[in-house]
Amino acid sequence: MSDFIIKPSVNNTKLFKYKKSLDENNNIINLPIIIEKPLTLYLNNQEIVTMMTIGDYPEYLAIGYLFNQGMLKSMSDVKKIEYHKDLQTLVVRTKLKTNFEQKLKKKVNTSGCAQGTVFGDLISEINGISLNTKITIKHNQIINLSKIINNEPSLYLKVGAIHGCVLCDTNQPLYYFEDVGRHNAVDKIAGLILDKNINPTNMIFYTTGRLTSEMVIKCIKMQIPILISRSGFTSWAVEIAKKKKLTMIGRARGKRFNILSGDFRFKYE
Amino acid sequence: MSDFIIKPSVNNTKLFKYKKSLDENNNIINLPIIIEKPLTLYLNNQEIVTMMTIGDYPEYLAIGYLFNQGMLKSMSDVKKIEYHKDLQTLVVRTKLKTNFEQKLKKKVNTSGCAQGTVFGDLISEINGISLNTKITIKHNQIINLSKIINNEPSLYLKVGAIHGCVLCDTNQPLYYFEDVGRHNAVDKIAGLILDKNINPTNMIFYTTGRLTSEMVIKCIKMQIPILISRSGFTSWAVEIAKKKKLTMIGRARGKRFNILSGDFRFKYE
Repeated sequence: MSDFIIKPSVNNTKLFKYKKSLDENNNIINLPIIIEKPLTLYLNNQEIVTMMTIGDYPEYLAIGYLFNQGMLKSMSDVKKIEYHKDLQTLVVRTKLKTNFEQKLKKKVNTSGCAQGTVFGDLISEINGISLNTKITIKHNQIINLSKIINNEPSLYLKVGAIHGCVLCDTNQPLYYFEDVGRHNAVDKIAGLILDKNINPTNMIFYTTGRLTSEMVIKCIKMQIPILISRSGFTSWAVEIAKKKKLTMIGRARGKRFNILSGDFRFKYE
Repeated sequence: MSDFIIKPSVNNTKLFKYKKSLDENNNIINLPIIIEKPLTLYLNNQEIVTMMTIGDYPEYLAIGYLFNQGMLKSMSDVKKIEYHKDLQTLVVRTKLKTNFEQKLKKKVNTSGCAQGTVFGDLISEINGISLNTKITIKHNQIINLSKIINNEPSLYLKVGAIHGCVLCDTNQPLYYFEDVGRHNAVDKIAGLILDKNINPTNMIFYTTGRLTSEMVIKCIKMQIPILISRSGFTSWAVEIAKKKKLTMIGRARGKRFNILSGDFRFKYE
């Protein structure tokens, strides 16, 4: 049973267009293809970044991006969000001036499907975070979450070339976002958590993408104690996850998975 | 038959390490996991970027990165390359001062497995490029290239969580690079082309990753007329490919594929 509160934007026909292609038998076929659009983000009067995005949930994307980059602490700092669809810009106005100018100096290009700029003090920012150690997850809950997510109609299943990130509780997936880069999809989750004031400390973060250091850091920053992916993982990601006692589960496919870190939350039955 | 000139670094045991994990049956298993390491790139005395990379071919990665970002035109501009493995830094020294400071001002976060910072004038830089329209590719050549590449032992097959990029001629794949982000793997190809003075105008670029605008732009910038991927594609990527008459083939799996652009180079038999 699927009880998603937010489902993939699979019925939003503005997110993809049909283009003619030739298949291997020289037949012309019309293929639906995802549209990536630029969205330029301003924090007050400062241009921060231009993101390539599918364009749904621009406010969540913007807020989550700023939060994950350490430029925004909470929604109470936000005075106003102005989304100008025609100009492909979004302005987040804060009540007080921020100190992001200093942060902009330090940047690291991350690996994988990464947005590339994770500001250097992100790792130091997660130092103060302790994840909830009381929550547990059972074997069949992992299998069940993966199954529901993979069977849910999504842009991935319809047009491909896209990643999904899903915020779940132990029994069911709840909020399902997609974007061309999983870094955008995870930022939408962060924006949702901030905007709706969700308590994520008992929740699970599922992603279709690989578990790189960036994904692990963002998961910890959001204070989500369990991270599941159907893809692989890198060594640095595993090391950060272990250090921060994050339960990190990779290659969750069918009835199989690997627990790389934090197996104390895993209940084998 | 595989006649790769450069094969994946699958026998380089320094690129991965074994970590204990629990599988779905609560068994402890030792998994090989790819190691991502920072490499900070300097152009003369200017720090450019810190890249997360598996660490093989750092010189190709550095040269190709600078080339793809429009900061370096040819190897004859390079005076010296200093790779300090212990310091995880690489310095490219040029004969003359470069104008990259201006370029650093304009940046766009790209989608997908992108390094995130493609400098704004990259698109205008490819305007002057015309790809070779004389080369053709046959149905069975596409199938054959895919098959050889997918059967070649690789870090992907061994440890996962990694992308491959392969420079091929129409009959065989030749240079096979991998990295945690496909943006690094494509930069290694660009570095190789520059360093070995390879003429890529009759060649084919194969990637395991998705075809986003960034991959298409880099392929055109390298003057490679045919781009093949086993993954999907975005709308903007298709539009750039069409405009520049790039032959773009996606979802090449088994005997199937889709030609999205430049089908005049395709010979159906």
